[in-house]
Amino acid sequence: MEYGSKLLEEVVNEIAALPGIGKRTALRLALHLLRQPESRALQLSDALRRFRTEIKRCRICHNISDTDTCAICANPARDHATVCVVEDIRDVMAIENTGQFRGVYHVLGGLISPMEGVSPEQLFIDDLVRRVEEENLREVILALSPTVEGDTTAYYIYKKLKDKPVSLTSIARGIGFGEEIEYADEITLARSIENRVPFDQSLKF
Amino acid sequence: MEYGSKLLEEVVNEIAALPGIGKRTALRLALHLLRQPESRALQLSDALRRFRTEIKRCRICHNISDTDTCAICANPARDHATVCVVEDIRDVMAIENTGQFRGVYHVLGGLISPMEGVSPEQLFIDDLVRRVEEENLREVILALSPTVEGDTTAYYIYKKLKDKPVSLTSIARGIGFGEEIEYADEITLARSIENRVPFDQSLKF
Repeated sequence: MEYGSKLLEEVVNEIAALPGIGKRTALRLALHLLRQPESRALQLSDALRRFRTEIKRCRICHNISDTDTCAICANPARDHATVCVVEDIRDVMAIENTGQFRGVYHVLGGLISPMEGVSPEQLFIDDLVRRVEEENLREVILALSPTVEGDTTAYYIYKKLKDKPVSLTSIARGIGFGEEIEYADEITLARSIENRVPFDQSLKF
Repeated sequence: MEYGSKLLEEVVNEIAALPGIGKRTALRLALHLLRQPESRALQLSDALRRFRTEIKRCRICHNISDTDTCAICANPARDHATVCVVEDIRDVMAIENTGQFRGVYHVLGGLISPMEGVSPEQLFIDDLVRRVEEENLREVILALSPTVEGDTTAYYIYKKLKDKPVSLTSIARGIGFGEEIEYADEITLARSIENRVPFDQSLKF
């Protein structure tokens, strides 16, 4: 593609380097910004720079934060003895959106993946073990994706924590609410039958 | 959605203000940048700012350009008496990509659209008339989309130029190469029969 402008070519290449955005979409977005007032593009440019340079990781749970300690860890109304372990900050957001969980989090920063060269040392697992030891935690809830990487990571954490005085649980797997049994995958369905619960307990929500 | 960070919320809102990008995609892109080296986000931020603040419009054809006169208008090897009129710079790129056109361009900057409140004065139509008068043009080729707006704009230009000593043409409409007649829309097919050409001429490419 001949852009006729180095500036345009550069911005298209930068936008197209984002995941899921091709050159055509990048061009469309760049030309859209050209039609908008200059302030729009400058706001976007500034927001990107500020976000990337000023955002912090919470020193306790490694969630992203504008301050040294995130709003969740700094909230005295939360149950600081119940820690939910998640892969990344998107999971924190998803769980926070349910409005049901009153504990705090521990963001691992990824999952163990030999395929992608992610070893346990690159994740905040040792830090989780330290929190269990130092913060007198009551329960650690594993909320990791049911993938090979998620299961590997969960098992690794289980081995690290099994002799510690903390209750280790995992979020329930099963048929989702509103999902049809007919269309559920076999593993989910099989596990869901195996891990059946008393009927009166299944009504609680 | 609770982002837990003003910086994240801000960047997500700015990205999601782009056409065709929702909040979820914006969040995914922001978090992607967080995982990348800081330099990546800064390069994107800088490219956006530079593109929007430094890019110019060619003083002759209004194509975007890094300099006062675009590379096409500044090229002495092009035929400066043949001007192809297009809606916007994407059309210039599309035609340049064919590698077939040796003339120059005139970018209108849009199409007349009473629905969207675009009047002829907001487009570079008067400037086209001035070019016809001052630059001793031989041919003006209208390459506008076959929409209501495109046809309206073409007719407006036709009225402005019909008494000038310049040949006014329009790009050919018809069944595209590789297209199947069975699936062509009725108007295209009808026009394509009406505007049939001698067979030996249809073989030229």
